[in-house]
Parts: sequence; structure tokens; C-alpha cells
Amino acid sequence: MGAFDFAGGTVVHITAGCAALAGALVLKRRKSHIEQKEIPPANVPYVLIGTGLLWFGWFGFNAGSAVGATPLAVNAFGTTSTAASAAGLTWMFFDVIKGKKPSVLGFCIGAVVGLVAITPAAGYVGIPQSIIIGLVGALVSNVAVSIKQRSKVDDTLDVFPCHGLGGMVGMLLTGVFANTAVHGIPGPQGLFYGNPAVFFTQVKAMAIVAGYSFIVSYGIFKFINYVVPMRVSELEEEEGLDASQHDEKYMQGHLLVHNNGNIEEKPVAI
Amino acid sequence: MGAFDFAGGTVVHITAGCAALAGALVLKRRKSHIEQKEIPPANVPYVLIGTGLLWFGWFGFNAGSAVGATPLAVNAFGTTSTAASAAGLTWMFFDVIKGKKPSVLGFCIGAVVGLVAITPAAGYVGIPQSIIIGLVGALVSNVAVSIKQRSKVDDTLDVFPCHGLGGMVGMLLTGVFANTAVHGIPGPQGLFYGNPAVFFTQVKAMAIVAGYSFIVSYGIFKFINYVVPMRVSELEEEEGLDASQHDEKYMQGHLLVHNNGNIEEKPVAI
Amino acid sequence: MGAFDFAGGTVVHITAGCAALAGALVLKRRKSHIEQKEIPPANVPYVLIGTGLLWFGWFGFNAGSAVGATPLAVNAFGTTSTAASAAGLTWMFFDVIKGKKPSVLGFCIGAVVGLVAITPAAGYVGIPQSIIIGLVGALVSNVAVSIKQRSKVDDTLDVFPCHGLGGMVGMLLTGVFANTAVHGIPGPQGLFYGNPAVFFTQVKAMAIVAGYSFIVSYGIFKFINYVVPMRVSELEEEEGLDASQHDEKYMQGHLLVHNNGNIEEKPVAI
Repeated sequence: MGAFDFAGGTVVHITAGCAALAGALVLKRRKSHIEQKEIPPANVPYVLIGTGLLWFGWFGFNAGSAVGATPLAVNAFGTTSTAASAAGLTWMFFDVIKGKKPSVLGFCIGAVVGLVAITPAAGYVGIPQSIIIGLVGALVSNVAVSIKQRSKVDDTLDVFPCHGLGGMVGMLLTGVFANTAVHGIPGPQGLFYGNPAVFFTQVKAMAIVAGYSFIVSYGIFKFINYVVPMRVSELEEEEGLDASQHDEKYMQGHLLVHNNGNIEEKPVAI
Repeated sequence: MGAFDFAGGTVVHITAGCAALAGALVLKRRKSHIEQKEIPPANVPYVLIGTGLLWFGWFGFNAGSAVGATPLAVNAFGTTSTAASAAGLTWMFFDVIKGKKPSVLGFCIGAVVGLVAITPAAGYVGIPQSIIIGLVGALVSNVAVSIKQRSKVDDTLDVFPCHGLGGMVGMLLTGVFANTAVHGIPGPQGLFYGNPAVFFTQVKAMAIVAGYSFIVSYGIFKFINYVVPMRVSELEEEEGLDASQHDEKYMQGHLLVHNNGNIEEKPVAI
Repeated sequence: MGAFDFAGGTVVHITAGCAALAGALVLKRRKSHIEQKEIPPANVPYVLIGTGLLWFGWFGFNAGSAVGATPLAVNAFGTTSTAASAAGLTWMFFDVIKGKKPSVLGFCIGAVVGLVAITPAAGYVGIPQSIIIGLVGALVSNVAVSIKQRSKVDDTLDVFPCHGLGGMVGMLLTGVFANTAVHGIPGPQGLFYGNPAVFFTQVKAMAIVAGYSFIVSYGIFKFINYVVPMRVSELEEEEGLDASQHDEKYMQGHLLVHNNGNIEEKPVAI
């Protein structure tokens, strides 16, 4: 149908986000979510290492979609970095405006949203447009995460607000800002450059992918859940999936012992 | 003698594995090994980060052995990834067949074995053969680790079962599956393609390298151990080598205090 | 003025080192520094991961300064690695000579100093010279860190001794050892090859950059500190900046609770 998606943001992030939402609705809520227990991030330094490695890998994903060491790859490389930076800073400062403290965790979440949002646009827009895409993506996802937190949807990792909506923002803004004059390789010209048709194709593609992905995933999850119930028992939930499903009970030199609902730690020699 | 080893699996992994076995036999067992104390993995997320970085670096090692951005490098890059993936999944599911739970630790160990096994073959086989090499390597190493655990050999990091045997599987299967028709650059044709001679050269090379490496390493370790005993004292062993040999007593914000055989932790400000 | 700085060691490391010294002098000392409380490294494995990623990224920085896949880039890539290795080993063994135990922490600090020191020289010297640069850089920084530890300057991360002095050693030794005969692309010939003028230009450039950076940074810090005092309160200092400034109170599955000057930990489910 002629939609433009440079590095596959639609097939990866919109589908994943919508499937995750379907999965969360089928699986329903964990006990800790119903009781509104606050579950802190396990380990901030791991989030930072993960974000750094992901950011680096994303260069391969987005610039690599140029399939060659060309000016197009350079363009995609550049926009990937500026969008992620803009989105990380936007998330952090938007948190500050909302009265929270600026945190590296917020920067990391924002940066990933920026990477998601620039994926469909990376080779079609210039640096200034990539900054706008990162900024809008981070704002939309940040607000959506707040709404989700007050809702009854237990999408633990914020896959829909971050990947689903981030991907949608990217698809739509590709239709707005696409202009390949920057690197000279022929490509789409978006709404902003006088082509509303390109924009509406992006809207249509996005809606079809999101709808298809949500509906089909919902059906598949329902079916699997009927055949093999996916929700673990309450006890296993409390113990944690690492211990109960994967037998990985040791955490950083500690054996986690569950004892009448309390968690105790025993240091072990290493 | 005309053996084929694409990226040096023989010189790196077979020699290392056999030397490690020699070292373990010379050094003998740690107190905790004799007492059969279970020592848990120190930190699963570190294993995961390490495996990811290693996998990435291995692309440089195997594809880099093509010494140029050529179809041969692309072939080596591809087979490296498929062999590691196949081996990781094989290890994980073989654990499940043996009645254990599927664990990320198992996947990581398997993936490294797959990387080891594909190293001599990377540029000589296609994708389907690389999957078989990963699968066979993981099975052989998994079984060997089980046998080792019941033995009196204290090869703590499983260097012989994983690197030594993984490397041997790779050398032998290079002799079986080698067929460079996939990328068109002339190279060996293995047993499977009608050349038993190539296979027997691989067997001979493997046996010579393994035997030489084991015997010479054994001699060197024996000599060093005679001049400077390598085994630390029982107290230092209990305290851990990080603390006793390198003065690195702090572990993730904790000071480890050894007290009559018990280990206590004192959190410290950071 | 014609000074030689291959990958920007002057603009990055000498300026950063001198600005850090100015900042430490303006900010004055933390309570824990005045009381000479020993603050251990938070987490040695993180230091190791960080050094590895930094080292890898530095290849992009130094070899990338050749702006092309040329013999010059290969030369810069090689010298970067040998200088870092030489500096890491020098730091570790110099610690041993001083009566300390060899530690991975020492190797990591030394390696980073080596990366800093080779930055201005990477494309202008050969492998043997890069080893000397790493060795001298590590010795100078190691001694400077010892002097700083006995001083009243609270430069927590040793930015001046490691980045400032490391960068200065690199600039000066570029003026001594520069000789581009190794890769054949025309460039400077240093003091050692009969051009004292090149060396004195390096000394002049270094002195100007260091002086300018220190004086201007000192003024800026003073001004900012006057408008918005930068030192946090004593209580916030004790609590740690992660918790007090960024609301990141969780550390590896633990909630750090500050209680009358003591720090307690409560394990939390994850």
C-alpha cells in the first residue's frame, strides 16, 4: 500500500506494543498490582548498561537498514542519536515539570522511546525533524505511562505506552516530516512538504497494523490461555518468576528465602 | 599438515581446554569442592551481560578472520550467530528434558559453547550445517559437564567440557560439513561431500594439539607448582581470592566480613 | 599555532582535568573527605564493564579521527590498544611495587589513563612509542593520585590526575615521538626525530589550554556557586546524591534507609 517505514518500526514496535496490551488484558493483573504495592526498579545501573548497549545496537538496526555504507546510512545514524537524546532529555525535564526529581531512569526510558519513534523515520528526515520526533514521542509516552499507572491494565514493562505509542508517533511524523532532500536519495515527501496523501497512507498503515496485531494477538493469547493457563500461582508470583520458573534463586551473592510472605536474604560465599 | 581451522578454534579453545584440565589435575581440589558445598552462580545478570558482549565480540573474531569485508566475512558472521543461537536453545531444552527448569544461565553457557564450536568452521560451512554444529556441540558439552560434576576434577569454570570439547566438536564437524560452495571462495570439502581425507586430517590435527597441549601444560604447571606452590591457604580460599589475593573486599556496596567460617555483610555508604 | 593533537586529547581531557580541579577547589570538601572516612568502590564489576565498553568506544573515537577506513585508522586503532594495555599493566605492577596487591580496579584505572594519554598521539606514533606513552602516563597519574590522596583537594573521581595529567603526558610525548613514517601519511616529526620546535609548540599549546581552562572554569564555578550554591546540605550528602537529588533510593533490590547516620538495607521483592 506504499507506506514508509525506514527500519521496520511498524513491524517491530507497533505490533509488539499492541500485542503486549492484548496479552496484559488476557493475563489480567498480578496480586501485587491489585494491591497496588510499589515495586521498585530492580537495579538502576543495569537499566543504564542495557540502555547504552541498546542505543549502540540500534545504530546497527537503523543505519544498517540503508543496506550499505552510504550517505543514507550516515543520515539514519545521525537522526537515531539525536532523536534518542532529545527524547531522553524531554522525559527527564517533563518529570521535573511534573514535580519529580530528574532521574537517570527517566532519561533511559525516554531515550528508548526516542529510538522507537525514530525507527520508521530514520532515513527519511533530517536532524531537526528527528529532534521533534524524539520530543513528541517522549511526551506522548510519558503521559500515557501516567494514565496507565492509574488504570487497571498491568502492562508491567510499559510496552504499549513506550513501544506501541512510540512507534505510532514515529509512523505519523514520518508522514509529516519525510523529506529526503537532506541526503539526496529519492524518497517520500510528507504532509509538511505538501503531500497529505503520504500522511494519510501512514495513518492507514498504522491503524491496520495496530488493529490486526491487537485482535489476532488477543485471540492467540485467549486460545493459549485456554489450553495452558499462563498465569502462575499466587505463591509462585510472590516468590518471583526467576526462582519459581527458572530456578534462578541467587541474586548478587544472596539466596532469596521466602518465609511467610517475607523475603529474607542469606549471603553466600562466592 | 593442511588442517582447516577458520578462526583459530584449535589454537584458542582446544589448547585452553586441555591446559585447563591439566591445571585442574595439578592444582587438585578446593576445600569446598571436596566437601561438595554447592556454590551458586555469583550473579546471573553479569553472566547475561558478559555473554552478550562476548557474542558481539565473536563476530569480530570470526568474521574478522576473513580479513576483509567480503562474502566470506558475511558467511562467517551468519554462521556464528546461528550456531550460538542453536547451541543456547539446545542447552536450555536439554536441561528441561533432564528435568531441570529452563534457565537463562543454561542458555548463556550453551551459546558460548556454540560460539566455540563454530569458530573453526565459520567460513567453511553454510547456515544449516552451523545449526547442526551448535546443536552437537551443546549436547556433548552438556553431557560432559554432568559427568565432570560427578567426578573429582575441580575444573570450576568447566573450561575443558565447554571450550576443550566444544573446540573438538567444531574441528571434527568442520571436517565433516566443510563445503565452501555457499560463498564460492575455494576451500575444503568435508567427509559429507566425499572427502574422508579432509576429515582424518582434522582428527589428526585435533589429537596432536590436544595431546601436546595437555602434556606440555601439565609439565609446566607441575614445575611452577614445585617452585611456587599455586594453591592458596585454606583460610584464603574461604575468604575468597578477590579479597585475599587482590584486596577487593567490597561487593556491591557491601564489605564482606569473614567471621569463624561465616560470612557477614556490612552495608557501606556509596 | 600548529600543535598536533590527533583525536582531541587536549580539548577533551586537558580541559576536563583542569576544569575538574577548579571545580573541586570551588566546591570544597565533602564531610566524609574532611573526616577521612574511607569510601570503597561501589561495585568493582561495574568498573570492569565500564572500562571494557569505554575501551571499545575509544577505538571509534581515535581510529574514527582518521575519518576513513585508511592505514591511518588502522595505526590509531593499534596504538590505542597497546597504550591502554601497557598503562593498565604498569598501574597494576606499580601498585605491587608500592606494596599493594594487584587489583582489577588498578588495571582499569591505568587502562583509562593509557587511553587518555594515547588520544593526541594515536595517528602520529608507532606501536613501540604507544607503549612508552601508556607506561609514562600510568606512572605519572599513579603518583599524582597518591599525592592527591594526601592533599586536601576533594577530586573524588581523580579527574585531574588521570584525565588532566594523562592528557598532558600525551600532548608532550606526541611532541617527542611523533613520526608518521609508520603509515606513510605526512605528519609531524617530534623531538626524538630532530624537531625540537614541534615539541615546544606542544608544550606551549598544553600550557595555554590548561591555564585557560583552569582560570575560566574557576571563574564560572565561582559565579554559579554565588548565584546557586552547588554544595548540597550535609544531610543530603550523607544520604547520597542518588537518593537526595534523583530519588533513586533502590540499590540492587535493596531500599537504603538512613537512620541516625547509619545505613540500613531492606530487601525488596523484584
